[in-house]
Amino acid sequence: MGVPDEKIFPHATAAAERTVAEHQAAQDLVYYAGWFCPFVQRGWITLEERKIPYQYKEVNPYKKEPHFLQINPKGLVPALEYKGKALYESLVICEFLEDAYPNHKPSMLPDDPYLRGYARIWIDYISKAVVPGFHRLIQAQEKDKQEAALKEWNEALRKFSAEIKGPYFLGEQFSLVDIAIAPWIVRDHVPADHRGFKREAVGEAWKKYAEQVEKRDSVVKTQSEHYEEIYGRYLRDEAQSEAAKAIRAGKVIP
Amino acid sequence: MGVPDEKIFPHATAAAERTVAEHQAAQDLVYYAGWFCPFVQRGWITLEERKIPYQYKEVNPYKKEPHFLQINPKGLVPALEYKGKALYESLVICEFLEDAYPNHKPSMLPDDPYLRGYARIWIDYISKAVVPGFHRLIQAQEKDKQEAALKEWNEALRKFSAEIKGPYFLGEQFSLVDIAIAPWIVRDHVPADHRGFKREAVGEAWKKYAEQVEKRDSVVKTQSEHYEEIYGRYLRDEAQSEAAKAIRAGKVIP
Repeated sequence: MGVPDEKIFPHATAAAERTVAEHQAAQDLVYYAGWFCPFVQRGWITLEERKIPYQYKEVNPYKKEPHFLQINPKGLVPALEYKGKALYESLVICEFLEDAYPNHKPSMLPDDPYLRGYARIWIDYISKAVVPGFHRLIQAQEKDKQEAALKEWNEALRKFSAEIKGPYFLGEQFSLVDIAIAPWIVRDHVPADHRGFKREAVGEAWKKYAEQVEKRDSVVKTQSEHYEEIYGRYLRDEAQSEAAKAIRAGKVIP
Repeated sequence: MGVPDEKIFPHATAAAERTVAEHQAAQDLVYYAGWFCPFVQRGWITLEERKIPYQYKEVNPYKKEPHFLQINPKGLVPALEYKGKALYESLVICEFLEDAYPNHKPSMLPDDPYLRGYARIWIDYISKAVVPGFHRLIQAQEKDKQEAALKEWNEALRKFSAEIKGPYFLGEQFSLVDIAIAPWIVRDHVPADHRGFKREAVGEAWKKYAEQVEKRDSVVKTQSEHYEEIYGRYLRDEAQSEAAKAIRAGKVIP
């Protein structure tokens, strides 16, 4: 998500606030986070699912600690520090958590190589179609652009939906595909309240899937309230995050 | 790359033509390719590097065989067929070739989990900055837009270049980072001839790296001539490939 907007609610709330409180002790792995950031939530869900010991550190984007900037010069969240070295990019972090903790079960990727590839195709689809589509929808200002963006997002979700085996994307296994899309499911009240989005308009399968994902323990535990306040700036297309600026300029979300 | 343009040179030439000829026998793994496509070259280099047995099938994008469309309804290349199932997306294919053939050494990803993550960060950077930058540069029509795009591409390459350990990106190991960027190195004569691009203007480290990559055996063996003919349509911004259309619309390359 990059550098978010200046005036934001300062810390996690609801179930996420308790999860943060439980992860303040020092650990080999430090997760630098912003409670509001959907990309942060991906790595966070993975940490929770795999029961990897981690220390949660909320990064105030306008008061970045020197140590954080030293290990991670771009200053972006999510980032993790592992034995003094930093990694960033949410999906890179999720894959790292698979590679570095092979004994923490369950894995978030299938064992079968073909299915791993299949999962990665749909993760890539989420990055290229679902996430930019969400941003285009909430940042759209004129009525006709909002309608076009809603149609586009519905279609993107419908295409994904057609592949859901149920209850999760790949079937019984909760996987990185579900993790990659979950943060935009639990934030869909924003386009629902402001852009006329309805889960059932995507289809019954989508509605059922979204309900499964949002009630998953790891998703609930990384979930805050106050997203509305964050997205106010997006809804007025005034947001200054890297994602918001990229969408406005017609570029790739960095 | 998706569906390329209609009038294209029909088959691989130069060293790639010999490589194609050597991979006509039936194998468990079929690689559906277009000789001209940079995304195809990524998977092809990986197959060659890891000496994985494969059958090369050139896909005529305007005469797609029913079998190809049946296993891969999107009809995109590169695609691979493995025991009757299809995968697509060049980087997904490269990762699959790691996962499915663990005994084929060398691996194209480091063994160390942190370094794997580091490699994936830079692969992601190539997808988000280097590849779209190349397309914006060659598709730019007005002089001022060409100059801005050249500056932007130089800067994107310079940032990547600053991380090169030499001789390859990660040091001695030729890796998926080098594979991900190689196809745009061996095609840089197009922006050089038509948009004033110069390797040395990026920097000495870049020039040296580019020369290392382009003389790598696997890169040479998957290399054709006649790229100029393909890119003529791009240079006039008349190309109809998915990548070309996405760049024109200010969207993510699918």
